[in-house]
Amino acid sequence: MRDVGIIGMGQVPISEHWDLCLRDLGALATLRALEDAGVDRADALYVGNMLAGELSGQENLATLIADSTALLPIEGLRIEAACAAGGAAVRAAYTTVASGAHDLVLAVGVEKMTDHLTDGITAALATAADADYEAGHGVSFVALNALLMRRYMYEFGFTHEDFATFSITSHENAVHNPNAMYRVPITPEEYTTSTVVADPITILDSAPICDGAAALLLCPMEMAGAFSKPPIRIAASSVATDTLGLAERSDPLHWGSIEISCRDAYEQAGVTPADIDLYEAHDAFTIVSALSLEAAGFARPGEGVALARDGRIALDGDVPMSTLGGLKGRGHPIGASGVYQVLEVVQQLRGEAGPAQVKNAAVGMAQSVGGSGSVAVTHILQN
Amino acid sequence: MRDVGIIGMGQVPISEHWDLCLRDLGALATLRALEDAGVDRADALYVGNMLAGELSGQENLATLIADSTALLPIEGLRIEAACAAGGAAVRAAYTTVASGAHDLVLAVGVEKMTDHLTDGITAALATAADADYEAGHGVSFVALNALLMRRYMYEFGFTHEDFATFSITSHENAVHNPNAMYRVPITPEEYTTSTVVADPITILDSAPICDGAAALLLCPMEMAGAFSKPPIRIAASSVATDTLGLAERSDPLHWGSIEISCRDAYEQAGVTPADIDLYEAHDAFTIVSALSLEAAGFARPGEGVALARDGRIALDGDVPMSTLGGLKGRGHPIGASGVYQVLEVVQQLRGEAGPAQVKNAAVGMAQSVGGSGSVAVTHILQN
Repeated sequence: MRDVGIIGMGQVPISEHWDLCLRDLGALATLRALEDAGVDRADALYVGNMLAGELSGQENLATLIADSTALLPIEGLRIEAACAAGGAAVRAAYTTVASGAHDLVLAVGVEKMTDHLTDGITAALATAADADYEAGHGVSFVALNALLMRRYMYEFGFTHEDFATFSITSHENAVHNPNAMYRVPITPEEYTTSTVVADPITILDSAPICDGAAALLLCPMEMAGAFSKPPIRIAASSVATDTLGLAERSDPLHWGSIEISCRDAYEQAGVTPADIDLYEAHDAFTIVSALSLEAAGFARPGEGVALARDGRIALDGDVPMSTLGGLKGRGHPIGASGVYQVLEVVQQLRGEAGPAQVKNAAVGMAQSVGGSGSVAVTHILQN
Repeated sequence: MRDVGIIGMGQVPISEHWDLCLRDLGALATLRALEDAGVDRADALYVGNMLAGELSGQENLATLIADSTALLPIEGLRIEAACAAGGAAVRAAYTTVASGAHDLVLAVGVEKMTDHLTDGITAALATAADADYEAGHGVSFVALNALLMRRYMYEFGFTHEDFATFSITSHENAVHNPNAMYRVPITPEEYTTSTVVADPITILDSAPICDGAAALLLCPMEMAGAFSKPPIRIAASSVATDTLGLAERSDPLHWGSIEISCRDAYEQAGVTPADIDLYEAHDAFTIVSALSLEAAGFARPGEGVALARDGRIALDGDVPMSTLGGLKGRGHPIGASGVYQVLEVVQQLRGEAGPAQVKNAAVGMAQSVGGSGSVAVTHILQN
């Protein structure tokens, strides 16, 4: 396998983009990634997207974006793994560059959700769950996570308030990210009095519905010296799956897909959790942050919430999380989020994170999760 | 890059499967591919599918199929390139094995369409076209192909009857394929008097709406001797794109994605069109067969129809096509078709095609096309 690095990154600020359609968002991020690397071409383009078919009546997205960026006739495929689609696109770009099939490969994540804020979005998001045994019976995606959060609170003796640090930290860091959707800090009082979505999950436990796109340009490390920016090496790339339905797991609070994907990634990179300088986890809900910390080996079962409450996920803590706002503060345009996550690790390892910079960041981990922990995509980057 | 071979294949007969859901179809094909190779495990599974989100409310299909085949926690991603999704899944499996990231990788194509025979299917298929500039204005996918067929007839002086050989040959060959949907020969009279769908395209110019699943198991050639069946080598794998919208092309009758994808594939395999013993083209409509023959270099512009009419696409011709029925006779479960196509080339190269066997077949080409020629995925196999 060839060693692979990231040499370009581009993003669109996350927002409700009423003036930009799917192709505009994807094209903007893609062209910015090429500009960042100082090149005007690529050999292939993999697009991470989950919902364009349901929400915009558009499949065949890789062709759409290759077309709108004048990159035709390059290879173009769309990669989907529910909410982990963005990470999956990075994974596909990584294996293709590693194989030698292509040298310059773009991983683009794009999602346009806000056209359907009041109709269809809940049903569309539920396609990440089991259509026959979960969504078909009326359970929404946030409801599945609410069941997990309630169970966690019962099992380990926590209250809703104990999860506040995850949300507060995300918003605190998002303030410094010009591409984040919510650049406003929140207080513990605002967290505890927030509107309930699916008890015990409130709005401030949940990542927002939004639009966005991000792109990365990958190439073999042996070629990476020829571009504008120093390359960031992909030290590990790994995907693991678990049952689609939550009810089929012996312990729904143990996310095996994350555990296995991390175990493989740590082995590939030759690191342990203690070596990770920042962890961009899939913080779509505060409960997912807690379960991720535990499955990834940073905390024992039931101790993820306490780890956060003790301040250890802050920028100067030993496990900095959501350093540029995470899914909660920066925003979670579903199929794009995984690319934003890897991009932000690149920002940190380049030392380009501004006031949100993690000091001496040398090893960063980005992780996208699809469904209720049914698929996890993990990347470890090193500078 | 590691040399890659196909060591296992499995399929479900194409039909209206009222008793099998998406997970059943995918699982059956997958388990049969593993059984064919004589193994009970794999390292990753890539699923080609286009419409499960729209038609079955189910994204996250790779997890669904890994789950239902007891292959958890292996890597699982869905690959989509509209109607070329199946070929794209084979492509992703190929690059992953070539990279060294995994040894045993499944490419599974699955599509369940007949639950929506009377509602939604036309709109769902139109997501392969440009949502903003084509489908959004009411043009259906068959209408786009009808425009192409009418233009071809006008430009090169052919009548509808001249296209009959494509359809007749497909049905003739499908008779010998126990997995084909239409095992009935058709006559020239039946072809010319068939019901019009979108003038000049009739039912007998068009591949059917149907359900199906097919799977292939890939591994490095250096390991391929250890399994039940002799491996078939993937000599070339290539993807190319063209404008999403038909109106944006300088010549809509020249499908550049096919031309470029074939050119790359011929170069990788070190062959010319004259070396190809059979060509499984994307014969979703008879006009696509004609355009494919021309773009792939078997005929000059305007001569694809005459090539077929002269009997050259028959099993004993110099360019055998649709040898086990093609999309028209075997059936076209959209995202699964590309896997069926590669599988049938494997059947031919193994000498397992029964009465449809192409004599001395040593080099075969399978090609999936997404949209109206907006993306082409080409594989050349050699035994």
